[in-house]
Amino acid sequence: MILIDGKSTSLQIQEEIKARVELRAGDGHKKPHLAAIIVGDNPASRAYVGHKIKACERVGFESTLVELSESVQEEQLLMEVEALNNDESIDGFIVQLPLPDHIDDQKVLEAVRPDKDVDGFHPVNAGNLSLGLPGFQPATPSGIIELLKRYEIETSGKHAVVIGRSAIVGTPMTLLLSRNANPGNCTVTLCHSRTQNLEEITRTADILIAAIGRPHFVTKSMIKPGAVIIDVGINRIPDPSRKSGSRLTGDVDFEGASEVAGSITPVPGGVGPMTIAMLLRNTLEATERPV
Amino acid sequence: MILIDGKSTSLQIQEEIKARVELRAGDGHKKPHLAAIIVGDNPASRAYVGHKIKACERVGFESTLVELSESVQEEQLLMEVEALNNDESIDGFIVQLPLPDHIDDQKVLEAVRPDKDVDGFHPVNAGNLSLGLPGFQPATPSGIIELLKRYEIETSGKHAVVIGRSAIVGTPMTLLLSRNANPGNCTVTLCHSRTQNLEEITRTADILIAAIGRPHFVTKSMIKPGAVIIDVGINRIPDPSRKSGSRLTGDVDFEGASEVAGSITPVPGGVGPMTIAMLLRNTLEATERPV
Repeated sequence: MILIDGKSTSLQIQEEIKARVELRAGDGHKKPHLAAIIVGDNPASRAYVGHKIKACERVGFESTLVELSESVQEEQLLMEVEALNNDESIDGFIVQLPLPDHIDDQKVLEAVRPDKDVDGFHPVNAGNLSLGLPGFQPATPSGIIELLKRYEIETSGKHAVVIGRSAIVGTPMTLLLSRNANPGNCTVTLCHSRTQNLEEITRTADILIAAIGRPHFVTKSMIKPGAVIIDVGINRIPDPSRKSGSRLTGDVDFEGASEVAGSITPVPGGVGPMTIAMLLRNTLEATERPV
Repeated sequence: MILIDGKSTSLQIQEEIKARVELRAGDGHKKPHLAAIIVGDNPASRAYVGHKIKACERVGFESTLVELSESVQEEQLLMEVEALNNDESIDGFIVQLPLPDHIDDQKVLEAVRPDKDVDGFHPVNAGNLSLGLPGFQPATPSGIIELLKRYEIETSGKHAVVIGRSAIVGTPMTLLLSRNANPGNCTVTLCHSRTQNLEEITRTADILIAAIGRPHFVTKSMIKPGAVIIDVGINRIPDPSRKSGSRLTGDVDFEGASEVAGSITPVPGGVGPMTIAMLLRNTLEATERPV
């Protein structure tokens, strides 16, 4: 059984990005510059943004954090987005989700200039992905593609089963795995809460992507021996043995799955760390894109 | 066996659109206005555009045909697109494909204003579809959804198999069938030229969508008894018994498939006529959209 180590792969990619930034600096180019807008004091959101800012430092990017209070009005937030759109020193930026209930997430995401939308959430980028055109891809599915590539996992003609049809993971994952590319060329089955005989379907999967958001949903009996198991879930469950009283776990029962899988991503340390690497890569691409 | 009659369904929808246009006229609204740009003298393209213009007359739309010579420069074509974008009397327009080789199709399609893109080919509309947001959907997959709806075919929890991953049929079809809607909520498997054991997969399909572009590719042995068969193919094959020496046929061997299918679309007279109805419906929606 091969452990697909997202943490070390992510650090490896960050090293490559750092080297590229240094090379570009030698040619007189400025540092890539990522900005993040965060609204309110949600501790998880603050932690995520903190990781992203730290990663920027690690690879030699500039970063800017725009902090807005929980009570900010939508109009004010849209003005901040517009300011970043127009700020030529900013190559790419993200708006950390979730936003407070009084703000229309979609309206805000659509206000981001597509060529600075390094989260890949704007309809233009989602459309480019769907049409097979160049554009920014969302970090989670593109991080999974990168893992498959670096672990030299054969995908062409394989049956990939994706569980979960979310707009930012399951759906774009289906598109990326099915397209004519390498990695890609999978026959893809997209499953969700209405799927019948799920276990029967997952047992035919050469590559199984679990993106449901339910701890230990995928069990040993659902897995074809030798399959590649990619666990997108990040669920917090009670754990009295920990000081915090809880721990993170995936959508896959790792213990059981490890007994049959050919390779598997752990949680934490699998898909999660790849998202930061992909965000940085998108930002580097935004910098290098001809204006 | 139920014959899914796309021709009469299309005419029924056109009657409904006509009634709606008349109702709107009574309220003092102007007629919906569709424009089409056609480049060169390709007989098939001319025929398609002719059908669209005729359908506009049938439902009480205004229509405008912009005819450009085969040798038109890309820049000139882009100027014509821009003129239609800015013409407030035009609600929606299409650029008939294919375009001559010296013109970049994608560049032209991306120049169309998304809120006038009634073909649904602009990345913004493809992205909205992928993200489950409102927008113009491409005519062929949305015509198929409409057929499933009007024939009251249960889709929730069913296994749909789509053969063909094109950007305008197979891929958006997969997205529409899998989304949380009615019709929708299918478990969807997207197959293509790299798929292995295709027959094994298609035999598990409750709903089978054939969009390969190869005559009679889907045969009786590939079909689960009782399945719904949707044939997107329009292939011209030799037929010495016809005056023209040829006839149109689908991707499905209709004779054989009819013996096992629960319901099936013929070619011609199935999916094809629905595309015009969907184009008209998109144009009506463009008219009714709040500015």
